[in-house]
Amino acid sequence: MLRTLLLTPGPLTTTDATRAALGHDWGSRDPAFVALTSRLRSRLAAIAHGEDTHDAVLLAGSGTFAVEAAIGTLVPRDGRLLVLANGAYGERMAAIAGQIGRACSVERWAETAPVDPGRVRAILREDASITDVAVVQCETTTGLLNPVEAVAGIVAEAGRRLLVDAMSGFGALPLDLRQIRASAVMASSNKCLEGVPGIGVVVAERSHLAACAGQSHSLSLDLHAQWRGFVANGQWRYTPPVQVAAALEAALDQLDAEGGPQARLARYRNNHAMLTAGMARLGYRTTLPAALQAPIIVTFDEPGAGFDFTRFYDALQAEGIVIYPGKLTQAPSFRIGCIGAIDGHDIARALDCIARITAQQAEPVGTN
Amino acid sequence: MLRTLLLTPGPLTTTDATRAALGHDWGSRDPAFVALTSRLRSRLAAIAHGEDTHDAVLLAGSGTFAVEAAIGTLVPRDGRLLVLANGAYGERMAAIAGQIGRACSVERWAETAPVDPGRVRAILREDASITDVAVVQCETTTGLLNPVEAVAGIVAEAGRRLLVDAMSGFGALPLDLRQIRASAVMASSNKCLEGVPGIGVVVAERSHLAACAGQSHSLSLDLHAQWRGFVANGQWRYTPPVQVAAALEAALDQLDAEGGPQARLARYRNNHAMLTAGMARLGYRTTLPAALQAPIIVTFDEPGAGFDFTRFYDALQAEGIVIYPGKLTQAPSFRIGCIGAIDGHDIARALDCIARITAQQAEPVGTN
Repeated sequence: MLRTLLLTPGPLTTTDATRAALGHDWGSRDPAFVALTSRLRSRLAAIAHGEDTHDAVLLAGSGTFAVEAAIGTLVPRDGRLLVLANGAYGERMAAIAGQIGRACSVERWAETAPVDPGRVRAILREDASITDVAVVQCETTTGLLNPVEAVAGIVAEAGRRLLVDAMSGFGALPLDLRQIRASAVMASSNKCLEGVPGIGVVVAERSHLAACAGQSHSLSLDLHAQWRGFVANGQWRYTPPVQVAAALEAALDQLDAEGGPQARLARYRNNHAMLTAGMARLGYRTTLPAALQAPIIVTFDEPGAGFDFTRFYDALQAEGIVIYPGKLTQAPSFRIGCIGAIDGHDIARALDCIARITAQQAEPVGTN
Repeated sequence: MLRTLLLTPGPLTTTDATRAALGHDWGSRDPAFVALTSRLRSRLAAIAHGEDTHDAVLLAGSGTFAVEAAIGTLVPRDGRLLVLANGAYGERMAAIAGQIGRACSVERWAETAPVDPGRVRAILREDASITDVAVVQCETTTGLLNPVEAVAGIVAEAGRRLLVDAMSGFGALPLDLRQIRASAVMASSNKCLEGVPGIGVVVAERSHLAACAGQSHSLSLDLHAQWRGFVANGQWRYTPPVQVAAALEAALDQLDAEGGPQARLARYRNNHAMLTAGMARLGYRTTLPAALQAPIIVTFDEPGAGFDFTRFYDALQAEGIVIYPGKLTQAPSFRIGCIGAIDGHDIARALDCIARITAQQAEPVGTN
């Protein structure tokens, strides 16, 4: 039987080895698990080259939990967050700030346009009340790559702090905390790290994190308190998803074996190139111009007349291939992911299915 | 090789069948997973006999996340929570209320004394500002069973709402929402449900939950919003731990096959009776009198002279048996759990190890 391919923004396809690592019971306060946690934390900080300046704090939950924990813990109660938004994940950061009671300004771009660093510079010059800036590295709404390095330079120059939602690219897209200054980088066990979902990761600047005691709006999502706990005794404050943590370690072993983030990105780039070329041959157009597209997830315009996304989805699903609806507000679209434990053979399989289904859909209903 | 026994308050020993259910990739928005989520929600509400009045809302995270979500969503922003505390988990609810900004009164009992319903009645008569009362069913600090039914009767009579932290007993200890009125019962995928950790459960009264829009202090932990999401399209708002959810369904199948919560409780009672009898023969005394003890986790007094918990723990750990340190503030103690996928044979194995280790510890160091 062919394995299921999750060509989505997550949960993603994982390897047999990663899922095999789920098969053990761990005592969460047992030295073996404490050591596992410590290895995870070191390795995750090192992926962003933050080992000298940052600490990785792990939390149960999805990536959104990690983003909320970072905003709630690291943005001062009397601070103001500037969110740079060109999609649903930027908007989600603004929604978090609103719901947890942090003052927030939102600067918006079209969903198909990258954040403009020049406008960020102007806003920071104008509004002295802004203490922190939040940006999404790869906006999963479209698959667009924002210019994080340029934004980081401007934010640092203006003496503000930066939070980077690196959820969908962490472990593959370049992000080097020796080159850019960020008070936090948020990631997830799933996505490009290729673990299973269930753990949120915040790689937080140690010097700032240390100054954030009592700032969190939440007990469960208090990054400072969890960091102190890890430093004090290596333990999670609350029962961790132990199997998910073990699978994450197996996934990091595979990331190393593959050659690290650079090699992983090369595999994703190949997936992406094959996918967009193959889809173009079948008449599907990408929503974004190639220059803005990260090799993470691709938005395709619905081809219009005769195309029925639900039929298309169901037909693919029947072949063990799961894709994703679009998230654009302006035009009908759908998304196909390039990440997870998949390679060119899987993309070829998917394209083969899509070709057959596209041909069937083109026929008048009732002829086959 | 003998399997690891986690005789702790959690994570716990799970069956091979439960862990085997972790071995599949699921698309979280795929109809198959949406259907799985829906089955989980129905079955979890039914375990507490809340199917007519309550809805189960699932959240990624530990049990504490679920407790915080319940308090933050269900206690009005201008309400006051009365926490009945006789251990760490009562204190944690008070800490949550404090950190998220809900007014809170704490009524305390000794860690070895149950909550006194008469005192609760008097407090509710005296303080009209109290809108909600929170109680822990089985306080894991000691293993003590609080009189939830009696407290629930008094709270209902006084026209207030009740939140029950049923974390450590849900799926085994009786809790019948047709008999007691509670706005929420909080539980976890781990513990007596015998899934793996990673999902928190709140079985919430539908009529009250519906009135709690916009009340949560948190986006990720907004129970109302997640409930509306489940009702609208059956989906989790944020990437769920899909493997953990699948394992929970496998665990619920096994709960049914065992004969439901009553049969599970009978197994735990047997584990508990064997454990305390065997430990008594070896000279270990329980901290609590038998009448207060739930068959969930047992606190034993450290026997004093010559007993070294770290050596004791390590020796057991070397045999694949994980126990737990004490959490009492007054006296040195340790804890051994009776729950999880363990039966009399496992308790016999643990007792055999403890007998050998106790005999070794009694010998002067250096003689063996």
